[in-house]
Amino acid sequence: MASISPLPTTSRPLASDLEIARQAQLKPIAEIAERLGLPPGIIEPYGHHVGKIPLEAIKGQASRPKAKYIVVSAITPTPLGEGKTTTSVGLAQGFHHIGKTATVALRQPSMGPTFGIKGGAAGGGWSQVVPMERINLHLTGDIHAVTAAHNLLSAMVDNHLYHGNASGMDLNQVAWRRVVDINDRGLRHIVTGLGGKANGLPRETGFDITAASEVMAVLALADSLEDLRRRLGQIVVGWTPSGEAVTAEDIGCAGAMAVMLKEAMKPNLMQTIENTPVLIHAGPFGNIAHGNSSIVADQIGIHGSDYLVTEAGFGADMGAERFFNIKCRASGMQPDAAVLVATVRGLKVHSGQHRVVAGKPLPDSMLTENPDDVRIGASNLRKQIENLRLHGVPVVVAINAFPTDYDSEHAVIAEVAREMGARVEICTHVKDGGAGAAVLAQAVVEAAEEPSHFEMLYPSEMALTDKIETIAQRVYGADGVDCSAVAKRQLAHFTAQGFGHLPVCVAKTHLSLSSDASLSGAPTGWRMPVREVRLSAGAGFAYALCGDIRTMPGLGANPAAAAIDINEMGEIEGLF
Amino acid sequence: MASISPLPTTSRPLASDLEIARQAQLKPIAEIAERLGLPPGIIEPYGHHVGKIPLEAIKGQASRPKAKYIVVSAITPTPLGEGKTTTSVGLAQGFHHIGKTATVALRQPSMGPTFGIKGGAAGGGWSQVVPMERINLHLTGDIHAVTAAHNLLSAMVDNHLYHGNASGMDLNQVAWRRVVDINDRGLRHIVTGLGGKANGLPRETGFDITAASEVMAVLALADSLEDLRRRLGQIVVGWTPSGEAVTAEDIGCAGAMAVMLKEAMKPNLMQTIENTPVLIHAGPFGNIAHGNSSIVADQIGIHGSDYLVTEAGFGADMGAERFFNIKCRASGMQPDAAVLVATVRGLKVHSGQHRVVAGKPLPDSMLTENPDDVRIGASNLRKQIENLRLHGVPVVVAINAFPTDYDSEHAVIAEVAREMGARVEICTHVKDGGAGAAVLAQAVVEAAEEPSHFEMLYPSEMALTDKIETIAQRVYGADGVDCSAVAKRQLAHFTAQGFGHLPVCVAKTHLSLSSDASLSGAPTGWRMPVREVRLSAGAGFAYALCGDIRTMPGLGANPAAAAIDINEMGEIEGLF
Repeated sequence: MASISPLPTTSRPLASDLEIARQAQLKPIAEIAERLGLPPGIIEPYGHHVGKIPLEAIKGQASRPKAKYIVVSAITPTPLGEGKTTTSVGLAQGFHHIGKTATVALRQPSMGPTFGIKGGAAGGGWSQVVPMERINLHLTGDIHAVTAAHNLLSAMVDNHLYHGNASGMDLNQVAWRRVVDINDRGLRHIVTGLGGKANGLPRETGFDITAASEVMAVLALADSLEDLRRRLGQIVVGWTPSGEAVTAEDIGCAGAMAVMLKEAMKPNLMQTIENTPVLIHAGPFGNIAHGNSSIVADQIGIHGSDYLVTEAGFGADMGAERFFNIKCRASGMQPDAAVLVATVRGLKVHSGQHRVVAGKPLPDSMLTENPDDVRIGASNLRKQIENLRLHGVPVVVAINAFPTDYDSEHAVIAEVAREMGARVEICTHVKDGGAGAAVLAQAVVEAAEEPSHFEMLYPSEMALTDKIETIAQRVYGADGVDCSAVAKRQLAHFTAQGFGHLPVCVAKTHLSLSSDASLSGAPTGWRMPVREVRLSAGAGFAYALCGDIRTMPGLGANPAAAAIDINEMGEIEGLF
Repeated sequence: MASISPLPTTSRPLASDLEIARQAQLKPIAEIAERLGLPPGIIEPYGHHVGKIPLEAIKGQASRPKAKYIVVSAITPTPLGEGKTTTSVGLAQGFHHIGKTATVALRQPSMGPTFGIKGGAAGGGWSQVVPMERINLHLTGDIHAVTAAHNLLSAMVDNHLYHGNASGMDLNQVAWRRVVDINDRGLRHIVTGLGGKANGLPRETGFDITAASEVMAVLALADSLEDLRRRLGQIVVGWTPSGEAVTAEDIGCAGAMAVMLKEAMKPNLMQTIENTPVLIHAGPFGNIAHGNSSIVADQIGIHGSDYLVTEAGFGADMGAERFFNIKCRASGMQPDAAVLVATVRGLKVHSGQHRVVAGKPLPDSMLTENPDDVRIGASNLRKQIENLRLHGVPVVVAINAFPTDYDSEHAVIAEVAREMGARVEICTHVKDGGAGAAVLAQAVVEAAEEPSHFEMLYPSEMALTDKIETIAQRVYGADGVDCSAVAKRQLAHFTAQGFGHLPVCVAKTHLSLSSDASLSGAPTGWRMPVREVRLSAGAGFAYALCGDIRTMPGLGANPAAAAIDINEMGEIEGLF
């Protein structure tokens, strides 16, 4: 096991993400495509520094050597952010500093938060994806295409009800809402179809943010255009009074949706600030959906370089669990190693001794040397390492170092990681770029050489109820699950309708290993309440709602949008 | 004046638009850019056959020779369609057949109708824009960007009301709705903000189709990024109880909207099936907005070739009137000639003797030789020629020939056109491509050589009420205007608030020269009722509502979407 390296020294001052991004020496996107081994001319340029990769590339790349497949996850996130995206980007860059090639696969960020709470989703510092204004705005329009396809189905469902409701759908059991890629609280709960007969049937419904659309999850989980078409058809938009599912196929909309999503199915190619290839594709929510980037992007990337680094949303109990049990189940791909990002700050918060608020300065108590609090909070780290090892995957803990950390605090993390059988390294990629993650990359190389014993947490044949129990007890550390009467009825209904083989996505808070956001560390002695169970039959999973899960954010009193503008030189300001 | 040419003979069978499009030999978009005289590398490719042109090109092109500026309009449209887009495309192609170069500028079609009523908006037959699936679907995402920018402002307005309403906006006078690029009748009239305090303030509102967004009109009328930013700030989102306007600038959203629209401000370059350059940019509605493609596209195109052909929406009373009095007023550009498209079928309908329904076969009575009905219906042609000549522009009537036409019927059109002082030619560009519009192109060359006496219908200083009277009487042929009490109050209010200098867009039916859709030909002896007047202060016009103007279409019992799919080869089927 590698020893902890000293913090690298650097003379580079830490400028703002935007300033750093503007210093980047970008290469033409065709050159980045060449690094992936893609044949000349296959890339479809979208501007000079973004390209789409046609799905023919999956077949085209298949004869090339296979990369090691590395999933990046984290301790349970705190409002501070643990730096999972920067670490994914930094690690991929780090491989290039030890003579290996690598590609990183990320989700496309939603514009909602970009204009809501300040914060891009392109990494940061010297570990970011460029051009940052492309990734944080429309990119190549994939999210817009998902919005359009989703809302076409919404209009077709209402039109179906308006023109005779041939499927016999129960007006009180229409399951399909609408979506918009904006934080708009006023759209959460609305009544449509008002103003007279010509405007359709009045009914209660609402909008979610596009990342929460099942269409987004379908885009992420389909492994070909045909599979996309098939999955779209399987989307359940409502139920008949006798409990039969009415699908997008029944409504006659799945073909048109597939046509709308044809270009969106092609992964987007970008680069990091060090010209490492980046695949950006799909952005499903991390609670009601599986929170991972697309299968087709990984299918292309897995034959593109020595290592393919892919990021899973939220903590290892959420994103990584779904990576293993939903994404890998659908793709048939197997990870060779997992990276778990941990921070001193995060583990201090997990000690339960400190309250932090996003965007506010850290309290003084967080900034003093305090290895004891790190040790208390490390219960979370311990459990998340366990969660990764449950799936038979070698683990490397990446300590994402901050200037306010102390060596004694890093030492505690390293000790806990080693106790749990994980490798561990300190990384400074935000400040130092790939050079700051070279030791991490070396540890990942070693971990990925170990024989892989990947296994899923549960077989598809396991009953839906048991799947939820298994995830809650083995991953979250619950004593058990309490299903509401409604949830029990839904589970029985879905099983009877032939959906019992689906994996389950548990929609709980991401801010705790438990289903109670206020519990830090690794809570024990609690039971998980399941309020309701819903179906994403097109995406291919059921999801269990534990507590209030918001699928449409609101804007704050001072939204980021108010500070974003174009300056006299025509440049974007205030975006991040 | 040129004589009527005989129908050209051709051996090419008339295949479907899609089959024809797939036969096209497309050139790389960089080569098309070169034909416009754009420097190498300036074009930003979006796929291999679409590119965006940065606005620097306006300045870069300025030293090149200026093109003749040709606007294409039509008789009052019937449900059959007169072929204005095919004629615009065919004419541009036709110039190349007589040794001239030309570019055509068109609006971007909305996806709503594409998935609603069958019918692409890329021209047709051998006069179409390719690739047709790009122009009819997302293209480069401009419409989506308009949707997003519009809805960000909507969310920011509701958020402003939620967080204290510092502007003091009257909750009953919020003027800003939301938009979606889908035909969705259920969204016309909705109540938002339900479900408790956390979901905002409950209020009545609704969605329009994106083409009806003022942001779309702003995109079309801005002449630079700075002008876009300024106009966005001037959008009025509501009013205080004392009648003061609350703007997007007041809400702090104009900068963020400009950032969202930065890429959308760049015109899109495509090509016709004969490789003629096509500028596709912006798609404002033709009733509540001015229905013309963008000023920046025309500013680039006007120095790109010998002729710039631009299409104006609906009949000459609508699109062309706004082209002259809204678009040219904003751009300072002056047309050299106008083309008026007329069909035998359309004029037969204008005789009032035949009822036709879109998508249904023509009644037999329409297919028999009947120059008399054509002569009766030609009252519409007469008036529309007059409307163009009112603005001092030489007119060429383009008879868009159909296989069911008779020579005697063409002869009537030619006779009326000549009586009215217009040139006239028969064209067969749908069947024959540019070769079928060569004689039309030649007539346009001659017309554009005449000295131009372009003048606007009214000066900016004229009172809003008088502008409406002027348009109604001189263009539509009304005896006068009857404003409702509400409309009178609004006109007085807007004038008092300093908006009296704006041009006026009259939102009436496009299916009649009058404000009553059932009146064909050139109705006289009627008065125009104005129900309400609204403000598009950012776009830079007021609009008067005459009758029910629908800003959100619905889907029919058999929407086009149901027939659209992806086939086994992964190709799009049923799109047109």
